[in-house]
Amino acid sequence: MLVLSSPSGAGKTTMSKRLLAGDPQISLSVSATTRPPRAGEIDGQDYHFVTDAQFDGLVATGQLLEWAHVFGNRYGTPRGPVEAALAEGRDILFDIDWQGTQQLRQSQAGGDLVSIFLLPPTMDELHSRLRSRASDSETVIAGRMARAADEISHWAEYEYILVNDDPGQCLYEIRSILVTERLRRERQRGLAAFVRDLLAGG
Amino acid sequence: MLVLSSPSGAGKTTMSKRLLAGDPQISLSVSATTRPPRAGEIDGQDYHFVTDAQFDGLVATGQLLEWAHVFGNRYGTPRGPVEAALAEGRDILFDIDWQGTQQLRQSQAGGDLVSIFLLPPTMDELHSRLRSRASDSETVIAGRMARAADEISHWAEYEYILVNDDPGQCLYEIRSILVTERLRRERQRGLAAFVRDLLAGG
Repeated sequence: MLVLSSPSGAGKTTMSKRLLAGDPQISLSVSATTRPPRAGEIDGQDYHFVTDAQFDGLVATGQLLEWAHVFGNRYGTPRGPVEAALAEGRDILFDIDWQGTQQLRQSQAGGDLVSIFLLPPTMDELHSRLRSRASDSETVIAGRMARAADEISHWAEYEYILVNDDPGQCLYEIRSILVTERLRRERQRGLAAFVRDLLAGG
Repeated sequence: MLVLSSPSGAGKTTMSKRLLAGDPQISLSVSATTRPPRAGEIDGQDYHFVTDAQFDGLVATGQLLEWAHVFGNRYGTPRGPVEAALAEGRDILFDIDWQGTQQLRQSQAGGDLVSIFLLPPTMDELHSRLRSRASDSETVIAGRMARAADEISHWAEYEYILVNDDPGQCLYEIRSILVTERLRRERQRGLAAFVRDLLAGG
């Protein structure tokens, strides 16, 4: 499980999309949310868009690994796809915030989790990236800046810290982390058998 | 500190050289040895070639972080260059065997160590690589094969296990590990100050 968190506007969603596009071994955990879709967002791909009643049902039946309130909406991680991916030995990417990360760590599935936090190079840079989203009003942007500062204050809860001042470099670093974590001895299935056969065949 | 171990013939020295050539942030820990130089080996670059008496002196004065007997010769890691590199925040590469790795881990300098073990794809492949070294007799090769099996039996003491069936891929994986380990939160000097300034400048 690879968690990618950052304040809104620091490049998390772009990085996620580029990482997923270039690596067939990893798939995205699509969050459920009660917030309405933005222009261009696709149900089932960007989010599972659900009603409040549907979200209540998911919580009540234990189908969410974690969930949280953000700006009056609820966001959660469906359990089924995560457990299926892990059972098949596939990697799964989580585009979630610090609250989600904390809950995921504490969940049953939280045993094998790698966490990355993306920082913006400056707050001005973050502000201008948020401004360039035509859909958001000044009030929304101010709220997002306050929330960004709150998100950033949790940076030290993550294993890897990346400063995203160059998206190409940042993507390279995320890919390196994924390549590296897959090479850890305890994550390579069948390695003990491989070495046994290697020595027996000598 | 990055340790690269493998049985002789699995590509460790080639990988070390290519890694060092492409990355100015890392330098090699040059071992001291009592074994005579092979054709083409340069004193101070491949090894520090020393006499038995000189080696005794290095041991007696505590100037080796670790040392071991291998095939009647002694090999050791000089302390000074390692401590200097670490004090300056530079990375240092160790091309050492499992005994050296164990001792290095237990030494005063052993706090921040990343260990990689390279496996050959097959023992036949290893044998043919050892054969192609014109300098070695059949007896020496047989001895090296036995020693290779002994070295391989320590694979599970390493954090990362790489099968070197493609040198280009193997180098890419080693570089990824180095990039990744540098991105760990606790290894990035000045990160807390960076985040403080980031939030203050917001």
